[in-house]
Amino acid sequence: MSPEVFKDWSAQVLARVESALSEWVPASAPAGLGDAMRYGVLDGGKRLRALLVQAAADAAGAGATAQGRDAALRAACAVELIHAYSLIHDDMPCMDNDVLRRGKPTVHVQFGEAQAMLAGDAMQALAFEVLTPDADEGAPAATDPVLQARLCRLLARASGQSGMAGGQAIDLASVGHALDEATLRDMHQRKTGALLRASVQMGAACAGLQTDSAAWKALTEYGHAMGLAFQIVDDVLDATQGSETLGKTAGKDADANKPTYVSLLGLQGARDEADGLLRQSLAALARSGLSAADTAALAALAERIVHRDH
Amino acid sequence: MSPEVFKDWSAQVLARVESALSEWVPASAPAGLGDAMRYGVLDGGKRLRALLVQAAADAAGAGATAQGRDAALRAACAVELIHAYSLIHDDMPCMDNDVLRRGKPTVHVQFGEAQAMLAGDAMQALAFEVLTPDADEGAPAATDPVLQARLCRLLARASGQSGMAGGQAIDLASVGHALDEATLRDMHQRKTGALLRASVQMGAACAGLQTDSAAWKALTEYGHAMGLAFQIVDDVLDATQGSETLGKTAGKDADANKPTYVSLLGLQGARDEADGLLRQSLAALARSGLSAADTAALAALAERIVHRDH
Repeated sequence: MSPEVFKDWSAQVLARVESALSEWVPASAPAGLGDAMRYGVLDGGKRLRALLVQAAADAAGAGATAQGRDAALRAACAVELIHAYSLIHDDMPCMDNDVLRRGKPTVHVQFGEAQAMLAGDAMQALAFEVLTPDADEGAPAATDPVLQARLCRLLARASGQSGMAGGQAIDLASVGHALDEATLRDMHQRKTGALLRASVQMGAACAGLQTDSAAWKALTEYGHAMGLAFQIVDDVLDATQGSETLGKTAGKDADANKPTYVSLLGLQGARDEADGLLRQSLAALARSGLSAADTAALAALAERIVHRDH
Repeated sequence: MSPEVFKDWSAQVLARVESALSEWVPASAPAGLGDAMRYGVLDGGKRLRALLVQAAADAAGAGATAQGRDAALRAACAVELIHAYSLIHDDMPCMDNDVLRRGKPTVHVQFGEAQAMLAGDAMQALAFEVLTPDADEGAPAATDPVLQARLCRLLARASGQSGMAGGQAIDLASVGHALDEATLRDMHQRKTGALLRASVQMGAACAGLQTDSAAWKALTEYGHAMGLAFQIVDDVLDATQGSETLGKTAGKDADANKPTYVSLLGLQGARDEADGLLRQSLAALARSGLSAADTAALAALAERIVHRDH
């Protein structure tokens, strides 16, 4: 996929996701809650998780039916809602106490801590609401309920104690402690890896891929490798870029004496590791039984995740 | 249903729910997260929501199949997880800043604010995980995925911005403001009413009741009335009982100049309103087309909600 084609593809995906999120995160939610939710999720970030959902859905053929397309859009918005809620809570004073996110004041700075906590809570619930449209409510291409349940299953497992929240708990407990590589890897596989991998799996599920298929296994391996690579590159960027480029406070983890891949492997070691994971993810795609054309967006995304500069 | 029969019935339900929660909320969750989650949800409270799920499931006939029984148990645990997470977050310093809950130190007092926030977040995800068991994982009586999706749909809508979280946002914004009765009612229908009503609906869904049936409509009206009655009685108890009886800090809402049904309707007016809602809920059961024997537990629960002393 040429850079121009990828650019067009991702711009189209992002426009659809932004429009759907704007429709589904209601400004009308009471007492300013909708404003805080919209501030926290709209117009923000790289939407990497949404792109992974859509790229996997495309690779596996979900685009062939209106139901598959609708389900992929819902899955993309749901993972972005989970990601956005986790950032809101993570930024709060009792966690990372960050005041800057994507170049803007964080949600609790803008709306107060209580509203920030509630907005995050409501966004997690909304993610599951978005995944379970009611045919009775007149959704035009309401997803197959069997697929709805599968998407909820994948998302819940990636978000909870065995996934993202569990990883954050390890992170919390690790401040000031020397972690070995295995523990650091486990932490990140949960904290960021689980949701990135689930994004790929949810996209694949929208096309009906079954868990015993070669394609499902290959896409899962791709998602696993990208989940880890993403965090390694994040640590490299945190150590080498300024706050202005990142749109968030740089160097905070090192300052807080939190272990990072850079502190553990060194800068070059971390970069080598990320390149190895890129090769691994491309090899998995090659083994998937899907065509190179079908997996082109996934391959382009992998390159982009590893070679990004912010 | 005699008091003795109700006592036996509820003791059996509570034992099953407690045992299932103890199995499904894993002590093994990393970095102490599991301890905080278990502290927040096990061995706690009246389990009113779980009892409503089970009573509605019994009324509608979910007990006839192993799948129905398994689904009702999962639904009962899921609503308790959502309720428990909301209490953990609600007790935090940025919200109600409560240090006592069910006679014990609140979760953030015991485990710190960051762990309390994460435990709540993980418990919300776990609620949806519990509702979506994977047949591949060898669950013995895995629920029909169509029912799984329906339960997720009901729970997500009751928990998010149009339900519980939305009600909490109104509550937050109302401190020190004079609310009229309509706004107070709207706040409570969302904050506590939505999840109580959803508990009844989820139980009914486990028996396969469809939304256009007379029984579904009657049970929904019952749940709506009980949701409101519960909060009115809560306000009455808060105004008339000591902290020791309630197991939480009494009189906090009045102290914080928060509007309550007692401040709005007076003590006797609030009691009369609760009695009216009890009559309404019993009338709905009588109209449901279900037998008095089938709805006996729901009727006993309604009496208990309105005439409880803590």
